[in-house]
Amino acid sequence: MVTMTPPSLSDKRRYLVLALDEAVRGARAGFGGPFGAVVVKEDRVVASACNRVVAANDPTAHAEVEAVRLACRALGSFHLAGCDVYASCEPCPMCLFALYWARPRAVYYAAGRADAAAAGFDDARLYAACSITPSSLPIMVEQVDVPGAIQPFAIYATLVDRVRY
Amino acid sequence: MVTMTPPSLSDKRRYLVLALDEAVRGARAGFGGPFGAVVVKEDRVVASACNRVVAANDPTAHAEVEAVRLACRALGSFHLAGCDVYASCEPCPMCLFALYWARPRAVYYAAGRADAAAAGFDDARLYAACSITPSSLPIMVEQVDVPGAIQPFAIYATLVDRVRY
Repeated sequence: MVTMTPPSLSDKRRYLVLALDEAVRGARAGFGGPFGAVVVKEDRVVASACNRVVAANDPTAHAEVEAVRLACRALGSFHLAGCDVYASCEPCPMCLFALYWARPRAVYYAAGRADAAAAGFDDARLYAACSITPSSLPIMVEQVDVPGAIQPFAIYATLVDRVRY
Repeated sequence: MVTMTPPSLSDKRRYLVLALDEAVRGARAGFGGPFGAVVVKEDRVVASACNRVVAANDPTAHAEVEAVRLACRALGSFHLAGCDVYASCEPCPMCLFALYWARPRAVYYAAGRADAAAAGFDDARLYAACSITPSSLPIMVEQVDVPGAIQPFAIYATLVDRVRY
C-alpha cells in the first residue's frame, strides 16, 4: 500500500510554480485568462492545464475544470481520489463546486480572489454573491505563500491582444 | 433585426419537456444522473445534452455544462448571448456559476433542488453550504410548472445498474 503523506511546504510550492507556469503559458498563447492548474497523485503530475475559455469557445474551460477533466480521463475515474489540485489562483465559485464534485484530497492555491479582482476578473463579485467559507464545503482548500503568485496577472496586463471574457 | 421576445409559457413547457426527455434518455443509457438540458436561440434548439459524468469520466459533465459547451461550440462563441437554457432540474451551484459565466438571457428549470435531494443528489446540501438567492447573481433563473418534472428521478430509481457519483 502506498503511504499517502500530505505534501510538504516545498512540494506545495514546487507544484504551485508549475501551475503558475501554466498560467503564463496559456495567457501568452492567447488561450484565455492567466490561470493554471495541476493535479498531482502520489508525487506524480497527472494533469496540467491552463484556462482555455477563448481558445475552446468554452466558458467553463477554467484551468481547474480543464485539469479535473484531463486528470479524470487519465485516471479513468470520475473522482480524483488521493489527488491534490494546485491552482495558480483561488478557484472561482464554479471551479470550487467542480472540485467539490471531483473530490480530490486537497486544493492548494497561490494568488487570492482579490488579486484576480485587481486583474479585472469577476471572482470577488461572485464570492460576494454567496457566502462560501472555508468550512462551508467538505473540501480542504488552502492558500500557500509562493513568490511570483501574481506574476501571471502582471504578464497578462502587458498583452495587447488579450480577449476579455 | 430579429425581435427577441421572451418565450411564452407553452414554449417554456415545450423546451422543458425536451430537457426532461434528455434526462430520461441519458439515465436509461447509463451516461450519468437523470438530468437534461437544452439551449435555445431564436426558437431553435442549438444544443441538447444529458448528464455524462459516468460515461465521460468527467465530474463536471452535468447536463447544463454539457449543453453550454455544445451550444458555445455550435455558435462559435464563449457566450450564449440571446440564448435561453432549459434544464430538467434546478441547476446545482457549479452549473449555476457555469451559466453565470456563459451569460444566457435566462434559465428555466422543471424539478427543484428538493426533488434532486429526494433522489439522492447532493444539490440541496451544496445550496445549504452557501446562500445563493435568486437575486444574488445577475442571471435570470425561473422554475416552471411542468407535468412530469420528477419523472426522470422515478425512472432512475428503477434502474438496477445505475452508477452513483
